[in-house]
Amino acid sequence: MTPTIDLLTRHRSIRKFTDEAVDPALFTRLIEAGQAAASSSFLQGVTIIRVTDPDKRAGLRAAANDQAYVETAPEFLVFCADLSRPMRCCTAHGGVPAKGLTEQFIIATVDAALYAQNIVIAAESAGLGICYIGALRNDPARVTELLGLPQQVYPVFGLCLGHPAQDPEVKPRLPVGVTLKENSYSTDGEEEAISAYDEEMRTYYANRSANIKVQGWSDQMAGLLAKEGRPHMLPFLRSQGFLTR
Amino acid sequence: MTPTIDLLTRHRSIRKFTDEAVDPALFTRLIEAGQAAASSSFLQGVTIIRVTDPDKRAGLRAAANDQAYVETAPEFLVFCADLSRPMRCCTAHGGVPAKGLTEQFIIATVDAALYAQNIVIAAESAGLGICYIGALRNDPARVTELLGLPQQVYPVFGLCLGHPAQDPEVKPRLPVGVTLKENSYSTDGEEEAISAYDEEMRTYYANRSANIKVQGWSDQMAGLLAKEGRPHMLPFLRSQGFLTR
Repeated sequence: MTPTIDLLTRHRSIRKFTDEAVDPALFTRLIEAGQAAASSSFLQGVTIIRVTDPDKRAGLRAAANDQAYVETAPEFLVFCADLSRPMRCCTAHGGVPAKGLTEQFIIATVDAALYAQNIVIAAESAGLGICYIGALRNDPARVTELLGLPQQVYPVFGLCLGHPAQDPEVKPRLPVGVTLKENSYSTDGEEEAISAYDEEMRTYYANRSANIKVQGWSDQMAGLLAKEGRPHMLPFLRSQGFLTR
Repeated sequence: MTPTIDLLTRHRSIRKFTDEAVDPALFTRLIEAGQAAASSSFLQGVTIIRVTDPDKRAGLRAAANDQAYVETAPEFLVFCADLSRPMRCCTAHGGVPAKGLTEQFIIATVDAALYAQNIVIAAESAGLGICYIGALRNDPARVTELLGLPQQVYPVFGLCLGHPAQDPEVKPRLPVGVTLKENSYSTDGEEEAISAYDEEMRTYYANRSANIKVQGWSDQMAGLLAKEGRPHMLPFLRSQGFLTR
C-alpha cells in the first residue's frame, strides 16, 4: 500500500556483508532516524556504542557465541538501555535518584528497541542489510567490561550493518489470526493454526538456501522454553542497579 | 537520503484524530508489517489485543491516567509480551517449561517493541498518526483483568491510531553526540551538550502550539528519577510469572 510497508514486509536478517563501508553521511542519517523514535516519558534512555576497535570486536564476537559477523560486519552497534544519564541529571539538579528501577528498566529497554528498529528500517530503505545480535546477553558482564558501561546501563542487543552479500528468503511468521485478538485474550483455534504454521515452517527450513534443517516452529519453542534462558540475567541486571525492587 | 528516512525523522505523537475509520485492508497490512519485524530466538513473543468494545476502552482510559484518546482514537491496540504461547507449545510437545523468565522477559518485551514500531512506521507512511500509551502500566493488573490476559503475558504499552486532526511540531532530541559513543562509554562533553539541549527544549516548550510550559530536559528527568516509577511493577510482573529468578 506504501513503498515503506512493502519494505517492512520484505525484512530478513543479513549475516554476510561486502567489504564496502557504510557511507558516513548515511550513517549519520541512520542515527538521526533512531533518535526520532518515540520515547516513554521522553526519558531517551538509550546509548549506542559504535564499535570500531578490532580487539573489542573480537571480544564481543567471543561473548556472542562466536558469531563471525559481529567481528567482520562493516558496522557494529551495541544498544544500551541507559538510566545513568537521567540519574546524573537528577543529581546535578540536587535530587536523589530513586532505587528500584523496574518500571524504568522497561522504559529504557523499550526505548532502545524503538530506536534500533528505526535505524534498521532507515538502513534497509537505503539498501543496507542488518542482523540483531541478542547473543550479547550470553555474557553481558563481559560486554559491560569491554565497553566500560557504568551502573544503571546494560547492553540490550547488538546490531550488524552493511551492504548485503547474500539474498536469503523471507521467513514465514505466525498467522495474523494467532497474534492479533479482539477485546480479550483467547486461544480458540490457535492449536490448529500453529499446526498448519509448523508445516509451513518445516517446508521453509527444508527448502531455504542455507542452514537447512528439519523443524517446525512449535517444537523449536518447546526446546527453547524447556531450559531457563541465560540464568545469569537477573543477578547481572541487579548488579547493574536494575530490578532491585 | 530516502523517503523512508525523511518519514522517520518527521515523527511526532498525535493525540487528536478525525472520526474517519482506518481502512480495513490498510489495518491488515499494518499488522503484517508488525509481524515482519525481527524476533529474538524467533520466539515471536507478542500478542496484540485490538480493543473495539466501548466499555473496555473506557476501562483502559481510566487505567491510563484518563487520557481521552485511549477511549476515542479510531483504533486502540494493546501490545502484550507473551511467553504463554511458546510455553503452551513446550507443554504440547511433552516438555516442562522452565521457571525464571528474566531473559525471556527481555526477549518478549523487545519483540513487542520492534513489532509495534513497524506498525507505527507503516501507519505513518500511509498518513496515519499514532501515540504510544505507556500509562497502561499505571494499573497493569486492571488492564490484565479487562483483557483476560493469562499468566506469562503482560501489557507493555498501548497504541492509538487514526487520521491526524492536529499538526504538532517535531520535538527536538538529545544531540547525536550525547547518545552515540565510540568503543566505550564516556561522559566527556555531555554536561555542556545537555545544557545547550536544555536551552533548545525550553525554547521548544515555550513556543509550541499546545501544552506550553517552562522546562528543559534535564530538570524534567530530575523530577522523573527522583521518585520510584510505578513501584507496583515488580510485584505485578512476578505475579504474572516473570522475573522470578
